[in-house]
Amino acid sequence: MARLHSFYCPSELWPVKIGDTVLFTGSEARHMLTVLRTQENQVIRLFDGDGRDGLFVVKDASNRKAVLEAQQLDQHPRVNSGLTVAVGWGKSKRRKYLFEKAVELRADGIAFWTAKRSQGRMPEHPKESWREKILQAAKQCGNPYLPQLTTLDGGLSGLMAFAETFDTCFLAWESKDVATVLAPDSLGVGKSLIVIGPEGGLEDEEAARLIDFGFLPVTLGDSILRWETAAMYCLSLGWYARQVSDET
Amino acid sequence: MARLHSFYCPSELWPVKIGDTVLFTGSEARHMLTVLRTQENQVIRLFDGDGRDGLFVVKDASNRKAVLEAQQLDQHPRVNSGLTVAVGWGKSKRRKYLFEKAVELRADGIAFWTAKRSQGRMPEHPKESWREKILQAAKQCGNPYLPQLTTLDGGLSGLMAFAETFDTCFLAWESKDVATVLAPDSLGVGKSLIVIGPEGGLEDEEAARLIDFGFLPVTLGDSILRWETAAMYCLSLGWYARQVSDET
Repeated sequence: MARLHSFYCPSELWPVKIGDTVLFTGSEARHMLTVLRTQENQVIRLFDGDGRDGLFVVKDASNRKAVLEAQQLDQHPRVNSGLTVAVGWGKSKRRKYLFEKAVELRADGIAFWTAKRSQGRMPEHPKESWREKILQAAKQCGNPYLPQLTTLDGGLSGLMAFAETFDTCFLAWESKDVATVLAPDSLGVGKSLIVIGPEGGLEDEEAARLIDFGFLPVTLGDSILRWETAAMYCLSLGWYARQVSDET
Repeated sequence: MARLHSFYCPSELWPVKIGDTVLFTGSEARHMLTVLRTQENQVIRLFDGDGRDGLFVVKDASNRKAVLEAQQLDQHPRVNSGLTVAVGWGKSKRRKYLFEKAVELRADGIAFWTAKRSQGRMPEHPKESWREKILQAAKQCGNPYLPQLTTLDGGLSGLMAFAETFDTCFLAWESKDVATVLAPDSLGVGKSLIVIGPEGGLEDEEAARLIDFGFLPVTLGDSILRWETAAMYCLSLGWYARQVSDET
């Protein structure tokens, strides 16, 4: 698909068939009309972040709303594999950067949890600004599926409850005793979760509890990676795994 | 090695044996003495960025210089594999971020070249601020080998001349005709170079010339990656490849 301007349209507004119209309002509509000065009869791309996108013609445009008529509607296949990264919360300026990379590398999700060494207070819910960053990145790279953003309460217990919904759970753990290298092969099947400590790392006891619970401890190598490098490294292996499993 | 303060010491000052002293001056010495307020008898770590590091005792400290006595000297084995990324120059704010990640992911090097769609003027030589970023990151993550920074003149011809020194050369190319997925396996042996286009991508003619020259076209998948995501993705596969080849 050519690089048309893309806009996010919530799933509940998504049209059923070609020729149907969407009444487009709110901040995305204002951006479309007043910033990008989209004109009547122009073609734009909408996506719902849940696998659907399509081409729409602007039929009727004012400053604040537009009527968009569906010209082409696509449903992108959902893949069965996928990786979610659960990162220990920290006071980092680098969070938004990770969101962007997570969209580009087609992560299933980014979750935050409060570890013993977490600094600062994690918000109860994902912030609106996080979602905006994700949307921006999705417009840029064309990913039709938005990664799920989650903040888990309950510390380690909350993380364990969250883990129940995954097929395989890994723990990136720096201990010298961990010999298993996280490998793309193990990320290409089913839904995977990988836990990464906060800045400063996990405490031994936290790691022990997660391993007892069934998390597989893996090493990301003997370089001391920053938390966001560790996350991006895992997402890179996940993206490679998906390309290889798509091939078969 | 515990996380002592690390300082960069040029190879030409490196001591021959334990008990030898280094007269430490310049900006690193000032940082050690006036910012970190390192005291006499304290132990610090020096590294030369070329595989050597060691523990040193501060013997004599003023505001601007210190005498450091070698207590332990290590030579880290040089690996035979390694990845250099050659990125088309652009006006990006994200360059320093890539430098940091390149150090953490143990890149052999980062080179820049001027592509047809390059924006802005590439400096003739790597900037001092780039090197500072690399040093900072090396102190943080303990990588004893600094990635080589290079700016290549001569556009595509300069890039081809640079390529002659590598065992395998890849071209990350978005064309639909490219079916070979860049795989970690192919990065684990010998010295590899991978070329990444500037923001906006390579022109078809540039890609064709590189492929004619012998670069292997590979895909990084069908996500539209920003240049620095593409570079980081390749470096992640390279870091994984090195861990796996270390195992054998």
